[in-house]
Amino acid sequence: MSKEKIENEKLEDSSLAAPRGTRDFLFEEKILRDEVTSTLKTIFELYGFNAFETPAFEKWEVLSSKYAGGAEILKETYRFQDQGKRELGLRYDLTVPLCRVIAGNSSLPLPVKRYAIGSVFRDGPLKIGRYREFIQCDVDIVGSKTGLADAEIVSLTCDAFTALGIDYVVKVNNRKLLEGLLESMQVPANKLETVILSIDKLAKIGRDGVQKELLEKGLSIPIAKKLLSVILELSELRADQVLFQCEKIIGQNAKAKQGLTEMKEVFDFLDNFGKTDAVVLDISLARGLAYYTGLVVEVFAKNSEVKSSIAGGGRYDELIGKFANREAIPAVGISFGLDAINEVLKLQDKGAKPKKTLVSVYVIPIKAIPQCISVANQLRAAGIRTAIDLMNRSISKNLEYASKQGINYVAIIGPKEAEAKKLTLRNLETGEEKLMTIADTIMLISRSN
Amino acid sequence: MSKEKIENEKLEDSSLAAPRGTRDFLFEEKILRDEVTSTLKTIFELYGFNAFETPAFEKWEVLSSKYAGGAEILKETYRFQDQGKRELGLRYDLTVPLCRVIAGNSSLPLPVKRYAIGSVFRDGPLKIGRYREFIQCDVDIVGSKTGLADAEIVSLTCDAFTALGIDYVVKVNNRKLLEGLLESMQVPANKLETVILSIDKLAKIGRDGVQKELLEKGLSIPIAKKLLSVILELSELRADQVLFQCEKIIGQNAKAKQGLTEMKEVFDFLDNFGKTDAVVLDISLARGLAYYTGLVVEVFAKNSEVKSSIAGGGRYDELIGKFANREAIPAVGISFGLDAINEVLKLQDKGAKPKKTLVSVYVIPIKAIPQCISVANQLRAAGIRTAIDLMNRSISKNLEYASKQGINYVAIIGPKEAEAKKLTLRNLETGEEKLMTIADTIMLISRSN
Repeated sequence: MSKEKIENEKLEDSSLAAPRGTRDFLFEEKILRDEVTSTLKTIFELYGFNAFETPAFEKWEVLSSKYAGGAEILKETYRFQDQGKRELGLRYDLTVPLCRVIAGNSSLPLPVKRYAIGSVFRDGPLKIGRYREFIQCDVDIVGSKTGLADAEIVSLTCDAFTALGIDYVVKVNNRKLLEGLLESMQVPANKLETVILSIDKLAKIGRDGVQKELLEKGLSIPIAKKLLSVILELSELRADQVLFQCEKIIGQNAKAKQGLTEMKEVFDFLDNFGKTDAVVLDISLARGLAYYTGLVVEVFAKNSEVKSSIAGGGRYDELIGKFANREAIPAVGISFGLDAINEVLKLQDKGAKPKKTLVSVYVIPIKAIPQCISVANQLRAAGIRTAIDLMNRSISKNLEYASKQGINYVAIIGPKEAEAKKLTLRNLETGEEKLMTIADTIMLISRSN
Repeated sequence: MSKEKIENEKLEDSSLAAPRGTRDFLFEEKILRDEVTSTLKTIFELYGFNAFETPAFEKWEVLSSKYAGGAEILKETYRFQDQGKRELGLRYDLTVPLCRVIAGNSSLPLPVKRYAIGSVFRDGPLKIGRYREFIQCDVDIVGSKTGLADAEIVSLTCDAFTALGIDYVVKVNNRKLLEGLLESMQVPANKLETVILSIDKLAKIGRDGVQKELLEKGLSIPIAKKLLSVILELSELRADQVLFQCEKIIGQNAKAKQGLTEMKEVFDFLDNFGKTDAVVLDISLARGLAYYTGLVVEVFAKNSEVKSSIAGGGRYDELIGKFANREAIPAVGISFGLDAINEVLKLQDKGAKPKKTLVSVYVIPIKAIPQCISVANQLRAAGIRTAIDLMNRSISKNLEYASKQGINYVAIIGPKEAEAKKLTLRNLETGEEKLMTIADTIMLISRSN
């Protein structure tokens, strides 16, 4: 990633670079991005989701609504006016537009299962892996409060990473269970939120770091120590054992009992989906954002240098209703981070040659342009991605061009080939060359794609 | 379209509407959009183009560069600053980003064949069919000055509209031919540009309207009349006859001769591509924008209420070089207008029921959720887009929901079906219902998709 960073900084000098914090995606970069989003789209659609598309910018009043992103994110929001002096801002996530659409279309039959793949914008500090325009891939189920909806989101997540070829672990937890567990361990109600934020950092800052924070936040030493030892003990266990142990700790705490019931239901359904192997119950997981009300999910790549999460989400039963100023509308969803996913794929495929072009065959005419056009017509009609020499170049220049582009096959058509209604097909990787009919060429290239 | 307009205005009242001039696309609207862009993508890729992706905003200095869009379009550009006080603007087209990328990457092997499908933004007056965020679908060939490149763009355009199922006509012309023709008919050099702008309006404002403009612009009556009668005479002819007649009119005008040679070459190649039938040489076509230097192309739907063009482009050999402050870099391309194309498709398919959902089957459990999950797993693994009841609703409520969503098949699984490892499949369109194995269900639904 450091190479990427250096390149970005070098480009920064030039007035022809993309704006600071944004990127151009060409060739192999773009092909990888499109492959990933296309795989996600396929999985989202198999699970019965439909796509929604909303504008790149929103009214400022929508973005800054009390129940939208909050003050922190507004600081990082690009803001501007239209000519009618309307206040606007580039969207910072895909959840606010979803809330707006649901709130504004009260007659939509529920549940709404929607996905969205699109750019979001945050004018924040630049760090490795953080950009000012980046693509989020979100799936959300709006209107269902069942554990089956939770389980579907987790199962979809597992299938997505399997389809992407990433070895992953899905960490889940339940906010009610976590909050109730803390309550039952004597954490004062007014400190719940802030204690959760500290515990959420366990993987990052370790036991001592969290304990220090908890004491600074006013927890007593015995409570802080007890809390951490319970959480660390539970972190060693399988999901069913965690649930069993929790049941003993929480006593009669109603919130924790509710969370426990929800979590058990989700794991039962995950068992039906055949997905329990990849799912870990991590009692310290909270996902900072306060709007989660039940399930929380975070996904990490196994054995990867990428340590940040590659997807995250959960249940947020209150957000949409408050946003719409209506009764609660339950919802659960997950967001896939395209940049982190691409980084994992690039690192794990380090040795492999990335695909640089979509073009399968490059047609070179030697005084036979009409015949080349006719061949290109036939190849394209057969679904083969075909380019023709557009520069009237020599064979050697054309071979050099095709090779630089990363095109695998070259079809050479001169008077001899034209006469025989054939072509000379060269495989640029192996160097093999053969006089072939067009039908055989179509068969060979279709098979090798 | 008037219905759409009224709805937009109604929504405008609500703070939960999309910002003025922008739109939300849900369900059938989004499905149609995605089908169109996916068809275009397929054709672009068959012709050997690769996708580029650039940011939604650009540096203001890039957007306002002398050789970019010009003063008129800057007035309609959304402008803002980042926190570092950098001047930025939302892109108003996909050509400026292309110029920037080509200019900024001087080592790219030419030709570059790139396509881009993305939002562009114009804060202009709202009219029917004009929006403030809209998607352009651009293909461009950069680096080739050959007629084969021109012909490929035209052939691709024909294939795209055939694939979209739109009956179309491609109008083409050549700026050199048009300018030379006017010169040879005594139009003063300093009036060429403005005369061309008037002639370009022939289809819109008619012969009298254009003549009035030409006289106001200072052409003498005989020249204006001659010009119009020649152009109208040529408009009745087939392309080869137009070229034949032009040859007689232009005499020794070098520019016109060059344009004629180019146009002849393009038509010869189009003949090789098998595309001359759908292509008309319209000598009055100029496409306002001054940056075109050779071929100009504009596409219209035949027998449609949509009178505006549905795609347009041409050759611009000077723009990129000037932008990059380098020697000339020839280029030719075309831009497809998603909104106009969708409008044509919606009007021509008026009778047909639009596709409202991607979901093929909706699974309803009657006390058999685990079995339903297992069936959904199998259907999804077979590539069938499947939703499950997530609300624990009654059969009748579930049937109502599925029907409202526009889902064609419902699979009901109760204890009886679960026991037999079967399901009851109901076709909501025909009302037919049948107890089936899962394998048979997969066969049936795959076949009917």
